[in-house]
Amino acid sequence: MANHILKIIPLGGAGEIGKNMTAFEYGRNILIVDCGVMFPTADQLGVDLVIPDWGYLKDKRELVRGIVLTHGHEDHIGGLPFLLKDGLADVPVFASGLTRGLVEGKLEEHGLLASTQLNTIQAGDRFHVGPFEIEPIRASHSIPDALSLAIRTPVGLIVMSGDYKFDHTPIDGQPTDIAHLARLGAEGVLALLGDSTGAEKRGGTPSERIVADALEDVFDEAQGRIIIATFASQIGRVQQVLRVARRHDRVVAVTGRSMSQNVQIAQELGYLEVPPGVLVSLEEALQRPPDQVVILATGSQGEPSSALSRMANGTHRQVNIEPGDTVVISAHPIPGNEDNVSRVIDNLFRIGADVVYDRLADIHVSGHGGQEDMKLLLSLLQPKYLIPVHGEYRHLVLHGRLGEQMGIPRSNIFIVENGQTVLFDEEKAWLGERVPGGWVFVDGGVVGDIGPVVLRDREALAREGFVVAVVMLDNETGQPIGRPQIVSRGFVYVRDNGTLLTNAEEQILATISNNGFTPGDTSAVESRVRRVLDRYFYDETKRRPIILPVVVSV
Amino acid sequence: MANHILKIIPLGGAGEIGKNMTAFEYGRNILIVDCGVMFPTADQLGVDLVIPDWGYLKDKRELVRGIVLTHGHEDHIGGLPFLLKDGLADVPVFASGLTRGLVEGKLEEHGLLASTQLNTIQAGDRFHVGPFEIEPIRASHSIPDALSLAIRTPVGLIVMSGDYKFDHTPIDGQPTDIAHLARLGAEGVLALLGDSTGAEKRGGTPSERIVADALEDVFDEAQGRIIIATFASQIGRVQQVLRVARRHDRVVAVTGRSMSQNVQIAQELGYLEVPPGVLVSLEEALQRPPDQVVILATGSQGEPSSALSRMANGTHRQVNIEPGDTVVISAHPIPGNEDNVSRVIDNLFRIGADVVYDRLADIHVSGHGGQEDMKLLLSLLQPKYLIPVHGEYRHLVLHGRLGEQMGIPRSNIFIVENGQTVLFDEEKAWLGERVPGGWVFVDGGVVGDIGPVVLRDREALAREGFVVAVVMLDNETGQPIGRPQIVSRGFVYVRDNGTLLTNAEEQILATISNNGFTPGDTSAVESRVRRVLDRYFYDETKRRPIILPVVVSV
Repeated sequence: MANHILKIIPLGGAGEIGKNMTAFEYGRNILIVDCGVMFPTADQLGVDLVIPDWGYLKDKRELVRGIVLTHGHEDHIGGLPFLLKDGLADVPVFASGLTRGLVEGKLEEHGLLASTQLNTIQAGDRFHVGPFEIEPIRASHSIPDALSLAIRTPVGLIVMSGDYKFDHTPIDGQPTDIAHLARLGAEGVLALLGDSTGAEKRGGTPSERIVADALEDVFDEAQGRIIIATFASQIGRVQQVLRVARRHDRVVAVTGRSMSQNVQIAQELGYLEVPPGVLVSLEEALQRPPDQVVILATGSQGEPSSALSRMANGTHRQVNIEPGDTVVISAHPIPGNEDNVSRVIDNLFRIGADVVYDRLADIHVSGHGGQEDMKLLLSLLQPKYLIPVHGEYRHLVLHGRLGEQMGIPRSNIFIVENGQTVLFDEEKAWLGERVPGGWVFVDGGVVGDIGPVVLRDREALAREGFVVAVVMLDNETGQPIGRPQIVSRGFVYVRDNGTLLTNAEEQILATISNNGFTPGDTSAVESRVRRVLDRYFYDETKRRPIILPVVVSV
Repeated sequence: MANHILKIIPLGGAGEIGKNMTAFEYGRNILIVDCGVMFPTADQLGVDLVIPDWGYLKDKRELVRGIVLTHGHEDHIGGLPFLLKDGLADVPVFASGLTRGLVEGKLEEHGLLASTQLNTIQAGDRFHVGPFEIEPIRASHSIPDALSLAIRTPVGLIVMSGDYKFDHTPIDGQPTDIAHLARLGAEGVLALLGDSTGAEKRGGTPSERIVADALEDVFDEAQGRIIIATFASQIGRVQQVLRVARRHDRVVAVTGRSMSQNVQIAQELGYLEVPPGVLVSLEEALQRPPDQVVILATGSQGEPSSALSRMANGTHRQVNIEPGDTVVISAHPIPGNEDNVSRVIDNLFRIGADVVYDRLADIHVSGHGGQEDMKLLLSLLQPKYLIPVHGEYRHLVLHGRLGEQMGIPRSNIFIVENGQTVLFDEEKAWLGERVPGGWVFVDGGVVGDIGPVVLRDREALAREGFVVAVVMLDNETGQPIGRPQIVSRGFVYVRDNGTLLTNAEEQILATISNNGFTPGDTSAVESRVRRVLDRYFYDETKRRPIILPVVVSV
């Protein structure tokens, strides 16, 4: 019986649901779609990367038949090396040409390239992963070669939209394949797992092509160099810049590691058409007259170590921003990055550059569909069930409402959290058990050792700092030997607060001398010292640093 | 000679310029306009408030003739108690009725109410502060009783817009006084210090009244309770809610300390017209049928301890959100608060509430004018000089460009940072010296003791935590006594990493035994221990916690 049930398991994603990784299980077969990373939120202090918690797979590794990737963005492929290393090294991986190219670089860095079975797929293919027949569908998104997936399962046809919008005039000439989607609708779609990212956007998302007009305006007006920052993966944007640059007789140089890598990979694989002579080295560009130069850079999110931030701070090794330069930030700040982006813009203006950014011109457009895109997809596919995915909880709710407006009964719409399984047989769908569906932190070289306790400590340290008080006691008399030593960071500026700390030492000495502690009972002294210091510092400063006494009996 | 020069000094504001405080100096006379606080940015870890650095006034306290407040928002009045306590207790303070009411509460908390000379002013008054004649002008903003200021100085007429927009149909019936501004323009304005906050906004800012339509829609559709979160100071918004509630036969209860206080003050002073029977206690409201209830709450910025956040987390003592409740977030997230606001919205949807927020409906409108408001003000005043203020650097630049478009020569537009003085005589204006113009942190009960060193430490602690290693050495042999003691927080989860820390102790013992340190030379041992631990932890974890060795020789 259980063998005739399809189980869908949305996994991972900090905040977002069913975004970074999804598993499909039927009998003793598991298909994984995507394995991405998230970047830590502001309260995940010191964390480098966030990967999905795939603990559900722990005892089921031998059931995994394949991993299919929808497109080459970090939040869909960045976790793959960690997954492969966690006992899935033998599982075949399927990806479109550009996605594969980007994955290869990643696998090479982790020493996994030779051992991984990579397969190239393209729209219109049909291939099998265990009992699942998979048919990729062309989708337009903010990176070329993105795919939606039709997954034929023994209980019916499931469609995963992946990240998409309906762009009828995309830069690469590869629009989302409406006819293909309509054919699937005619065949009968059991369930859609649809991208909900843009569910707050009224209307549909404009075509990437509208950016061309804004770029033309910039190029028409700029007298000096033009510096353009965008996502390294936004190959379509890079393509537009190359075309406009050629029309305006400017050369283009690339700076920033990820941007250089991606441009090279995209060019080698034929996803970027470079007009002859337009792409030059940065050194060469810097020798040209300013009005013949475009510099493409990373840093559109204000990342402090990126090329653009370094230019704005005057610490870029090769590019000094000068009055007359025009800087274009061709991106929208991701929530949480607004402050960094604003600071970069302010600093660029301070140096005298002109800055063109999303609030001032249509210099960026999203890769995710808005409400009308979602309705169009529902209209084409006519799914029986809708599982909104890819988005935070509110996006899923709003996407679900669109589904209702399109005639799907509320009972056929599943708004689920990560780890909440949804079960299907040929007739119906229902909620199954809840499995681990959180995320795992990567900090430095270690996966998974940072948990809530460490994060809470980091937060407390960030707020008020710490004080360590080292006290030595005579083993026999229980009386202090010498003065206590106080070590502190992040609490007060030690150089200006000598008296505060000296007085704290006095408080420690007084409390030890006046209370008849049993010699050798260091823990009683420790808790006493902690209480005394906590009260003293609070009275003096209204702050509560983390206080750690170290009492040694010698 | 220097006595015939007017010096304008923009002070304070974290990021924003000339926002929180401005000083005007002529001869031995200083006028201060506003004294506000800023809330700390995400990287100002543990800081509670940010106040302007008024170090320039240090040796000039006896020259200060008066402090004029433009309106009652925290970023314009919140620093006043700190300023008065810093040697200006005798200086008269001038404020409009509502602003004075809000200031009084603040002064009372600081025990300053009895000793402060408060004067009520209103639009159309003329009064003197030293050699300055001040004439307040009615301005519409997101709090009632806001003022622009005409300041007649011996060198000419200066206008400070304060925070404003042109709202021709404001809720309190008090539009920005265009005729008054036009008269000043006819008189001849030497310089405008104009609000630049909205300089990125194309077009003009809509009237507060558009929110009424969105509220009507919400009230028409809601079946259960309606919970509305907005800024506590947004008295105009509260007024609209009261009116719509009465039309729909609902009572209104207020929760959240600042909201309750402000509603009470505004009502007492006649700035809030409460229809009879509409305002009830929360206890009373909770006994009514859900479709007769509105709850006004704080928390529109997702502040973790606010009423709305507690409702969303299920920790509010009185209000449990239930399916059927409609929550309206009548505000736009201030940059930096987006994550918190999103989390609140997600959690409210999770509990089953319907949530209406700015992305879905016109449920909020700004109190700051957009580009067309700024042009209208320039057109009315026709100032010879423009000093864009109130905004981050990019806003000032954009405001300056609007000034150029309106015919002010570029050389008459001063884009300055805080502390950059601008000098005027009757003929011309020029840049003067640069004085301290930064800000000062208030953390806990202490003003000004947190500086860059402490913040850097807090940041490092937040990222990787710390390790303190206590080592005791024999005074004579230089050899360790007992085992080193390692204390750590925020680095690794200690309970799971016993081996890592035990091995670190071994590393310490080994390095001390193998290197012939001079007995008693604790600092050599300390730097050695720091190096060994740094390398060891980096090799094992790729992290670099703050390492503090405490070596004691006994």
